[in-house]
Amino acid sequence: MNQIIQKQEKIEQKENIVNGVNVSKLLETVGVIKEKPEIAKFNFKAKGKWINGGHNRTTISEFYGACQNFQRSQPFVFEKDEPPVLLGNDQGANPVEYVFAALDGCLTTSLIYHAAAQGIKIDEVETSFSGDLNLHGFLGLDKNIRNGYEKIKVTFKIKADASKEKLQELVQLAQKRSPVFDIVSHPTPVEVNFEEDNNQI
Amino acid sequence: MNQIIQKQEKIEQKENIVNGVNVSKLLETVGVIKEKPEIAKFNFKAKGKWINGGHNRTTISEFYGACQNFQRSQPFVFEKDEPPVLLGNDQGANPVEYVFAALDGCLTTSLIYHAAAQGIKIDEVETSFSGDLNLHGFLGLDKNIRNGYEKIKVTFKIKADASKEKLQELVQLAQKRSPVFDIVSHPTPVEVNFEEDNNQI
Repeated sequence: MNQIIQKQEKIEQKENIVNGVNVSKLLETVGVIKEKPEIAKFNFKAKGKWINGGHNRTTISEFYGACQNFQRSQPFVFEKDEPPVLLGNDQGANPVEYVFAALDGCLTTSLIYHAAAQGIKIDEVETSFSGDLNLHGFLGLDKNIRNGYEKIKVTFKIKADASKEKLQELVQLAQKRSPVFDIVSHPTPVEVNFEEDNNQI
Repeated sequence: MNQIIQKQEKIEQKENIVNGVNVSKLLETVGVIKEKPEIAKFNFKAKGKWINGGHNRTTISEFYGACQNFQRSQPFVFEKDEPPVLLGNDQGANPVEYVFAALDGCLTTSLIYHAAAQGIKIDEVETSFSGDLNLHGFLGLDKNIRNGYEKIKVTFKIKADASKEKLQELVQLAQKRSPVFDIVSHPTPVEVNFEEDNNQI
């Protein structure tokens, strides 16, 4: 067992892989972006379809980035639904719960990638999320209550061979760099267009 | 076939179900909230775990609302990963793509529920999402470029027995009422705490 771990560590050292992130490639990417800034421009896409009631489906299968179009290895399909108390049939997490999936993923990946770039090996990361939401907003019953989360609370639990101060610094850096943290904590312009569909079903 | 549809429509009329939404229960809920406002207070939760590199997992299984704790019928588990061009292994959609799943679900459900409340029968809803994101932000290479989406574009295609003006009004109302549209387009406070884990693995 120890031999396998040693062998794995040897390979990782050779390729400079930290936390499962290929740091050589990360630094190479940064170098390429500095020479050719348009490499950094990405366009992500999704398609959605309403099923019934609070049940709808989003499919993600392609994106544009690094000056080319990409297909994902498989389409990623997400079912959303409400629990019965919110008049749904519990066929999936609901949209505000998906916000946690997005924010969790982004803060964790930002922390892991930036730790890797600094050569800090992380052993474990566990997170918990909680957000208060008052239905008066959605139902239009009180103009003083917002529709979305009043506040989101996140807790990071990290096991790593680094000082508490260093890990605190990484948690700060994750927030400073995370795209979804930015989207949630700052205004993001959303343009919604409508097309009537006159064709008969 | 027509008989089955007629039978289904009869049942829906009796229970006042429009677009799969039980409008009688929706109005009942509004009535209860007006009498007892704390019924409207919800707290959603999620747990996360880092797997490796850009791969991490969020699990959603419980929430608080209507003055009680609820367990979902099953845990909803979300894998996130980056595509190879972003140094991942394509084991899931990435966090900014999850933002589309959240926003898509919320705008669609808001439209469907509010249409149902107004008695407007919707036949089909299809959506498409697109968002520009420049990696200069995430990588900290340019302070003038934000980390998150510069702009999100959404297109709604709706098939329904209603005028174009009415449907446009519903698309506007969906934005006005949607919790995730609010979270994305306005600032949401996020408090991130850190706990060091001193236990050995």
